[in-house]
Parts: sequence; C-alpha cells; structure tokens
Amino acid sequence: MSVYLQDIPLPEAKERLEAALKTSGLWRRLGIETIPLDENAVGRVLAEPVWAKVSSPHYHAAAMDGFAVRAEATSGAQLSKPVILLLGSQTIYVDTGDPLPTDFDAVIPIENVESLDESGGISKDIRKPRSIRIRAAVTPWAYVRPMGEDIVATQLVLTAGQALRPVDLGAIAAAGLIEVKVARQPQVAILPTGTELVPLGSDLKPGDILEFNSLVLASQIRVWGGHADRFPIIPDDFAAICRGVRKAARQHDLILLNAGSSAGAEDYSSRVVEKLGKLLVHGVAVRPGHPVIIGVIEAGGKQVPIFGVPGYPVSAALTGEIFIEPLIAKWLGRHAGEQPVEIAQITRKITSPAGDDDYVRVTVGRVGGKVLAAPLSRGAGVISSLVRADGLVILPRGVQGIEAGESVPVHLYRSQAEIDRTIFCIGSHDLTLDLLAQFLAEYDRRLASANVGSQGGLVALQRGEAHMAGSHLLDPETGEFNVSYLPKFLPGVPVRLIALVGREQGLLVRKGNPKGIHDLGDLSRSDIRFVNRQRGAGTRLLLDYRLKLMGLPAEAIRGYNQEEYTHLGVAAAVASDRADCGLGIAAAAQALELDFIPLFQERYDLVIPKIFAESALLSPLFDVLHDGAFREAVSKMPGYDVSVMGRVILEA
Amino acid sequence: MSVYLQDIPLPEAKERLEAALKTSGLWRRLGIETIPLDENAVGRVLAEPVWAKVSSPHYHAAAMDGFAVRAEATSGAQLSKPVILLLGSQTIYVDTGDPLPTDFDAVIPIENVESLDESGGISKDIRKPRSIRIRAAVTPWAYVRPMGEDIVATQLVLTAGQALRPVDLGAIAAAGLIEVKVARQPQVAILPTGTELVPLGSDLKPGDILEFNSLVLASQIRVWGGHADRFPIIPDDFAAICRGVRKAARQHDLILLNAGSSAGAEDYSSRVVEKLGKLLVHGVAVRPGHPVIIGVIEAGGKQVPIFGVPGYPVSAALTGEIFIEPLIAKWLGRHAGEQPVEIAQITRKITSPAGDDDYVRVTVGRVGGKVLAAPLSRGAGVISSLVRADGLVILPRGVQGIEAGESVPVHLYRSQAEIDRTIFCIGSHDLTLDLLAQFLAEYDRRLASANVGSQGGLVALQRGEAHMAGSHLLDPETGEFNVSYLPKFLPGVPVRLIALVGREQGLLVRKGNPKGIHDLGDLSRSDIRFVNRQRGAGTRLLLDYRLKLMGLPAEAIRGYNQEEYTHLGVAAAVASDRADCGLGIAAAAQALELDFIPLFQERYDLVIPKIFAESALLSPLFDVLHDGAFREAVSKMPGYDVSVMGRVILEA
Repeated sequence: MSVYLQDIPLPEAKERLEAALKTSGLWRRLGIETIPLDENAVGRVLAEPVWAKVSSPHYHAAAMDGFAVRAEATSGAQLSKPVILLLGSQTIYVDTGDPLPTDFDAVIPIENVESLDESGGISKDIRKPRSIRIRAAVTPWAYVRPMGEDIVATQLVLTAGQALRPVDLGAIAAAGLIEVKVARQPQVAILPTGTELVPLGSDLKPGDILEFNSLVLASQIRVWGGHADRFPIIPDDFAAICRGVRKAARQHDLILLNAGSSAGAEDYSSRVVEKLGKLLVHGVAVRPGHPVIIGVIEAGGKQVPIFGVPGYPVSAALTGEIFIEPLIAKWLGRHAGEQPVEIAQITRKITSPAGDDDYVRVTVGRVGGKVLAAPLSRGAGVISSLVRADGLVILPRGVQGIEAGESVPVHLYRSQAEIDRTIFCIGSHDLTLDLLAQFLAEYDRRLASANVGSQGGLVALQRGEAHMAGSHLLDPETGEFNVSYLPKFLPGVPVRLIALVGREQGLLVRKGNPKGIHDLGDLSRSDIRFVNRQRGAGTRLLLDYRLKLMGLPAEAIRGYNQEEYTHLGVAAAVASDRADCGLGIAAAAQALELDFIPLFQERYDLVIPKIFAESALLSPLFDVLHDGAFREAVSKMPGYDVSVMGRVILEA
Repeated sequence: MSVYLQDIPLPEAKERLEAALKTSGLWRRLGIETIPLDENAVGRVLAEPVWAKVSSPHYHAAAMDGFAVRAEATSGAQLSKPVILLLGSQTIYVDTGDPLPTDFDAVIPIENVESLDESGGISKDIRKPRSIRIRAAVTPWAYVRPMGEDIVATQLVLTAGQALRPVDLGAIAAAGLIEVKVARQPQVAILPTGTELVPLGSDLKPGDILEFNSLVLASQIRVWGGHADRFPIIPDDFAAICRGVRKAARQHDLILLNAGSSAGAEDYSSRVVEKLGKLLVHGVAVRPGHPVIIGVIEAGGKQVPIFGVPGYPVSAALTGEIFIEPLIAKWLGRHAGEQPVEIAQITRKITSPAGDDDYVRVTVGRVGGKVLAAPLSRGAGVISSLVRADGLVILPRGVQGIEAGESVPVHLYRSQAEIDRTIFCIGSHDLTLDLLAQFLAEYDRRLASANVGSQGGLVALQRGEAHMAGSHLLDPETGEFNVSYLPKFLPGVPVRLIALVGREQGLLVRKGNPKGIHDLGDLSRSDIRFVNRQRGAGTRLLLDYRLKLMGLPAEAIRGYNQEEYTHLGVAAAVASDRADCGLGIAAAAQALELDFIPLFQERYDLVIPKIFAESALLSPLFDVLHDGAFREAVSKMPGYDVSVMGRVILEA
C-alpha cells in the first residue's frame, strides 16, 4: 500500500487498457442482437451493413393522380392541336402510387387533361371520362416512379457502425426488412462504495456525502448507448466490496467502482482489483480525476474490465467522458463521440501542472465578435461548474499554462446557436441574477455569469470580455453608487448604467441573536468576534464608509482583518461559530438559516456598454426589467427593493 | 372538393396554427409532472427552475487525506525550522470528505507531514502518530472545501426549459432534491390511412405500399421528447377514418393522419378535419411536402390539433421537422431544435419553384479546403436521399434557384467531424462502391458517392469538387479503359489511376431466357426488342465499340434508340417485358432476378488527383484495396474479378 499514486500519462493508460482487452478478446463489438424494426431501434448501432431485400418502389408507380398513357401516342399534341385518347384502350385513370398498367409508360397529371363525356363535352366525373383531351406531348416515364427509383434490391442502404436515426428506419423498412442487427448493449455495473455515502433523500449530518455519482455515471452510459445497473452502497469493507464486485461481474461487461480509488486508509479499490484480477493502472496524469484505477478481473470464467472511478463528482463525470465513453463506443462498433471545437480567447491566465493533461471547464460567449472562454472553478468537487460549463479546454501534458488573451480550442458542450444567444455577465454576484437568468430563458436568452467582484467586472468590460457587469461600488466621498467609478474603469466607453435592485446590507448573526447584537456600534464590544469581507469588495467599502461616518476605528473591531471572499463565506463563518457576526445580504443569512439585522440600503446596478445595450441580444433584458412577474419574484426575496429596478442612472 | 390545393406560404401556415392553438389555450407547456431523480429523467425538460435545498458541501469538508490544523499554529514553520503539532489537541487526522473538526481551519495533506512516534522517530502508522512535524506554514482554509463551495442553499441550479443531461442530475442531487418537475410529454397518435398500405413484412404485389411513415414519425417524436402511439392501418373509408380520429383524439394531444392529405378521389383527410373540427390550412408552399393539412378538432370536450401529413416518405419526414418538432418543443417549454449551419458551395445549379420554400437535400464534403454541397435526388419518394443527406439547403420563397458555385448555408444533419472524414466520390456507380463504403467505415472514413456517370465524374474532379471518381470509359481506338480520357478531361492535373475491379458486361434477359438470346448477333433478330443506355454512358460506348468490330449497324437493332439511364433501368425494362434484352452488369440482373449472359470484361477504375491520393484522408482507401476481406467480399458478387484490384494503371 502506498500513499502516493504513480500517475502515468493518459495515452499510456489507454494503451494498457487496450492491450489488456485485446488479449482478452474484448477490444471489439461485444455481440450482435437481432431486434424488430420499431421505434426502440432508434439510437441502436448497426452491427452489420443493411443491404436492400426489395427495390423501392418494387413496381413502376404513378407519381401523381392522373391518366396513364403511352408517351408515343401523345406526340404532336399542342395547344392548338389537341390529341384525344380513349379511356380503356389508350389511357387508364391511376391514383398516386398505383402500378403503371402494362404497356403504358407515362402519366399525365389530372390537372393537365380535359376529361370528356360521350358528347365531347366536359365530363362530370373527371376521373371516369369517356376520353381525355391533351394539349401537350409527354416524354416516356414522365410522372412515373420507376421500380428502384429510391432503393435497388441488393444495394447498400446503410453501413455498419451507424446509430440509427428515424429516417434510417424508414429506409430499412423501404428495403423490405422487418428486423435489424445491432450491437448488443454493454451492461455496466456501478457499485458505490464508502461508509460516508448516504442515499439521496437522507437527512444529512456533517460528514455524510450524498451518493449521486452512480446516477451521473448510469445516465452517461445510457446516453452513450449502454445499459447501467446501480448497486446499493457498500461500506468501506474489503470483503464486502470483493463480494459485490464478484457478483456484479458475472452479469456485466464492465464494473465501475466508485470511489476508494485513491491511496487513503479506506481506499480499497486497488486492493480489490489486485485480489480479483490484474491491476493495470493506478493513477493517471489527468486533472481533475487522476486517482483512476483500471484493471481486468476474472469472474464466472470470463474477463471483465473494472474501473476505480474517483469520488469527486467532476472527476467521476470526466472519467466517464475520457475512459468509459470510448470503451462503450468500441463495444458498440461506433465512432467515439466528438464534440464540436471552436477557437476561443481565454479571459484569464490558467496555470497547469506540467505533467498532467488538464481539463479546464469554461463558459463560452460571443462578445462583440470575439469568442471568449472564461475558466470556471477548477475544484474536482464542484459539479455545478460542469453544469455551467459550455465546454472544456484541454491543456496537454507539457503545457504549464496559458496567458489571458491566448486563443485555444474549446470542446463545446453546447451548440453554437446556444452560445450565440448567451449574455455574458461578469462582476459582483447577486441572487437577482439567478432569477434574471430564469426570466431571460423565457425570452430565449441564456445568462452566463462569472463572479469576480464589482471592480473585476468593470475591468472585464474595459477589456471587451463581457456584455454587462453587476456592480455595487459605493463612493465614500459622495455616498453614491457606481457612477464615479465608471470614468475611472471605463474611460471613453459610452455605457448605460441601469439600476437592478436596492438591497439591504446588515449584520448576519446566529439564530436568536444570542450575543444581542443590534448595530455596527456593537462591533467594538470585546465579546464580539467580527468577520470581514476582502479588500475591494463592495461590502467592505460600505463598512469602511459607515465606520468613518460613526468615527469608529477599524482597530477597535476584533476580527476586522479576518477576511472572507463571499457573502456566503461570511455567513458560514458565523454559522460555524468562527465569528459572531459579519456584514452581508439578507439572502446569505437565509441560505444558512441565520438571523439578519438590516442596517443599510444599497443599490446594485448593471453596467452595460452602449454598443451592447442597443443590441438585439440584450434587448429582452430591458423587457424583463419592466416585467411585473420578475419584479414580484425579486421582491419575494428577503431584503430586496424593486422600486428602482430598470431606472437609467446614467446614459453616457 | 377541389382538385387543386391552395398552397399558402409556410410562415402563414405556422401563424394560423399558432393563432388557433393560442385560442384553445394550447400554445404553451402542456403540463407539469413530478418524476423521481433517476436515469429516466435524462432528456426530460425542466418545467420549473431548480433552486438548491441544501448547500454542497453542507459542512466544511477536508479536501485531502491529511491532518486538520489551526492555520495560525503553523505560522513560522520552515524547512530548517519545523513546527511540531501534537495529535488530539493541535491536530486531528481526517480522510477526504470528513468534516473539519471544530476550531480547526485548514488541512495539511498527509504527504506534506512527517508522522512521528513517542520517541520522535518516524511513526509506523502514518495516520495515527503521536505528533506531526511540518516544514511549511499553511493559510486558513487550505485543503478545505468550505460549506457551499459547490452549491449554496437557495441558489439557482438550473433554469426551466433545459433538457436534463447526466451532470445536471448530479447537480440537482447535490442540491438536496430527490424529485424534479418536468414538462409532461406530448402524447401523439399516428394514424396511417390508405387501402394501398400494407404492414412491414407483407408479401408485396404491385400497388402495395409498405407502411413505414408511422415508424419514422413515431421515432422522430420520441427523439424530440414526445410519446407516440402508432395505430393500425385504416383503409380509405371516410366513416372509418372519422371513427379512428375521434377515438385517438380522446387520449392524445396531437393527431397525425398519414396520408390522404392531397386532393385526390380518396384523399379524405381534409374532409375528416372539416367534419370533426376546423380546417386551418390545406396546402403549404413548401417542397417537398406541400399537401399538408392543419386543423383543430374537438373530442371529449377538448381541442386537439390534427395534421394531415403527406404520404411520400420524404414529405412526411420533413413535415415532422418543419411543423411537428417546433410544436413539441413549444409543448415541452424548450427551445426548438437547431442544426448547426455551415456555408458551402453548391456543385450544380438548382432550380426551384419561385413561390415555394424549397428544402434541397445535399451531401456535404470538404475537398481541398472548399466545403461543397452536392444536391441529391429531389424526389419526395426517395427516402434514401434523406438517409444519405448530410444537410438541407433551404431556398426561400422568391428565390428561383441558385447557380453552381454559389455559396449557401447548409443546415447540417451531421457533425463537422463526420464531414471532415468524408471521402467524396463522384462519377459512375458500381456496387463495389457500396462495399468500399462499408470497409472504409471500419477505417473511420465515410464514403459519400454521387452518380453522374464516368464523364460527369471527370468533370467534377476537374472542378475540384470530388476526391475521386469512378470511371469505365472505353477508348474505341485502343480498346483501353480511361487512360486516354484523362488528358482530355483533366489537362495538367497529376492523377493516380488505380484499378478497382474487372467486371463483366453482358446481356440481361428474362428468367430462363425464353427468347434464346446468346450474343450481340441476336440483337439483329426481328423478334428481339433491345433496350439501350443513354449516349455517353460507358456501357453504350462499349456496345458501339463491339458492334463496330462485328460490323453490325445500329439501324439493324430494334430498340437501339430506346434509352435508359442506369443499369437498373435496363434491368427493369427487361423485367417488365418492355424489352427482351439489354446490355448491363450481372449485379443488375441479380437485383431483379433476371438471367445474365456474360459477354465482355471491362475495367472499372478510380481516378484520384495526386494531391488527394497522398492525403491522410484517402490513405485508408489503399489499405482497403489490399485488404483480403474486401477482395473476398467483392469477388462473391456475380461477375466481378478482383485480380486487378489496387493495380496502379497510371501515375502522372
């Protein structure tokens, strides 16, 4: 047992897997199934090419409702020199799809003939005349679908390896088949292991971890064309895990053991694989997700590959994409999945461990003609970053990072069209932006937001890297918000400054306010531990301004230098009793079930360069700001005032 | 009842539908369902935004296996000035995911400490030492995942209207939810009508039409997120159709009646709609697919929209894409589907009826840097053209066509990556190309072929519109194939001419050879009706060459001027007794169960410009030409000789 993993490069890990599966005869389509040609065949992968059994049409068919004729009998017909053909011997009425009668070789559509009765007048029943009069000749095979026009018996209809689409089923049916041979679906067993894991819906106590990796992995496998069975949680017990794996292996083609793939005291996966078979890989130089285990075990006389999938949700999901999807594709005989690639400009510097393939989640937006990729949280535990990701930037081994402004390929999770209707918002975060995102979705816009603080947002706007920024910067000289910062951060840039909300800032205290805190004056009490926001945060500016007005020096406050980076960080410090109070917004207090003492009203604005404010992309934003339902939804949140919403503070 | 449809423009048809559904309260999400958060939720569309119930993590969690410490207690630790912390009071061992013990604020990973025993030596159990020695200070919150790092309780996790992906399910689970509110799936009834329709698997007689449109429509609806029920075939009987529609409408949100939507004698759909409700549209100016019916009927006290879907399979499938997909998207509350768009150069002139929106199927290929779109068959009955299509070019009303070489947007059915690995082959068709496509698929290449005859293929190569061309042009002067045509069609273009197969040309006659035909000499018999190929076809050149050698004049042959455009056309003429024999290949005889009298051997070559012959894209082609399995598969087809396969005839 080792504390350190010996990470090997990703290509080597894949080669070891491939070599072992080739030896076991498992590096190919798993098997072939014959299934009926019905809706359930959609998405299944053809295991053999489809050759036509019959031609389509299988006879010469009338392509229009009309009269079958011999083309040569129409020769010479002109507007002024019509030709008359007798029903029965010289022409026969046919509906679309009817077989062309023997000895006839063309059809004249009913709208191009005059149907005549016995007297030579226009027939009452245009389909059962005595004769027809035509005023133009037709060529042989006009308005006839000749036998095999669509498909010729014996011809190739579809090649093997294709996932069947609805129209493919139609073509297979037209070719006379009623069944189709497809690749057998790989059966995957997913075994969650870990004493700390609890099922969804459990009451949570500290240390409990909700088990949802199996849900993500099973869903991925289903999307990729496999079938997955999720097993109950197995505690960290070597013998129990061995039993579970052995049992699952008998009925499955692949085992995913999640987690226990690292090298901790209770990380049994590698030992389980070593006991039941052969450990091929323990540790891959890929971030996130490096503690991956790959092995092959024996069960019931067959070889079964097994993966130790790391426990962090992002690592688990990416292990699926990097290793499991290509394996399932191989087993189905289809091409491995491919995401479209777009070149984008990275908005901030990324550093990367030189020895690893680094998968960086990014949001992607098109801002004024530039395609931008903004790196998201790189934490392996932050599954919301995968949800918010529009794509991945892959920094290969040997690359130690990229500078802001460099162009990189992004493997897109979303379509170009989705990205084109994305509004990129960078700056200070407020919960109203979440509601705004929901309302904009109904106006066919996607709001992607990145939280870098008010000043960070203005810097991003100046660089042309966002459509708008959220800001609540107080000017301590004037007591006014944002206005005086614009010429400083966005010199010469015409902007529209528009109010989003008024919101309350106040003190967050534990439930019931055990220390009896009432206002900023209490911060100087010796029994009160305060927790502050970082320098440059709007909330810190607000505090300093108020302290100055009160004449209260920072040194008098215990914990003034204790800094947190978000409203929630402050709330969490109070909730976990690291501090007695902090300054923040009511919603953060509500999120962690704290009490809130409202103190000040501040204004949170949107800063929008005029060029974007007047664009079609952003125009629904102004509709939402005047939408009564949106105002109502915002005003339901504690501490929000919507009376200022949509007011243009500055247009310059 | 009218023989002519009054086609209205597509946007007007859509507006009429929208207006009628708004009146009926049906132009919005159909309803909301609460479903468990499991794999079956993948692909379902969120009906409400997801707000987090709990934070994730819901406590401060150790991010690594290691020792929890108070950061301030580590200050001053250096390589040369280590700090020792006692287990229990100053440090506590934690596994990844464990809650941070109260009063501790950082974790030092186990690989960064020295675990010491009582004597101050290295502890045997590194996780249960007496004390730890550290040689670097840590900052507060190092290697800790603070509460809410991923998701903060009450924050927006996902907006409504999104189709759920695997990672979304993980985020919803992490946010503490066990159920999810999704849009109710639209229930669609598909009623095939038509006395000529027969179920798949039926023995076919002329006039029978295999009913597979319901399969294609039902599969489309499933892919788009609805549920479809396929009903048994109803014959052309007004009362029976009315009964069927009324019954289906009670349990469904949408009725698709297929076909009978035109204006023929037995086209009852419009009358059914008029009887049961209101006919909104009969005929839309869109090709293919113009005889579309749209209406709203009443059944069981509710309004149900109904479509008369045209009967030709391409029309039916496109009616699905144009009308049904956006309606289902509306009902699910998601954005309507969007295909990626690529600008491509059209390879031949397209003419279009000026009043119609014209949907032209194209294959798309990248040839030497140019993206090309080659129009496919425009027949509404040719479903194989939809299968082969890589995308659609939409010529809007008012556009009467586009010239070859013009650039147009193509709505892609396939990914850019698939198109990038496509080999574009234009020229004479041979069944070997079908097998080649299958073998190339295993080498990760897609073969797209268009049949324009041998000379047409050389013209396409000269224009830079294909990677290669199939050709079997006989030089009547020399008796040699293809070589002498290259300088004429491809002057100055270095090409590799490589043999694909030798193949037999011979006479196709009816089973049992009732007329006792044995060679070309029999063509001059007065009781023999011959059918010829068109001028310029390789087979026609071959015939003329042989007749000249024999001294047999064309005038002596009855039917010499009767022309067909394909091998199969010739076979069909013989099979349907329009002629007694024709010259063609053995495979065409086999396809229509004719007898074949082998006469001549000819060579079918691939003409490949050197620039493509040496490209990575085409390199697998040469592997396939020397692949024993491919040769074996080709030689199993009647009349093929593989001994020449892969031989380089000319490299210039």
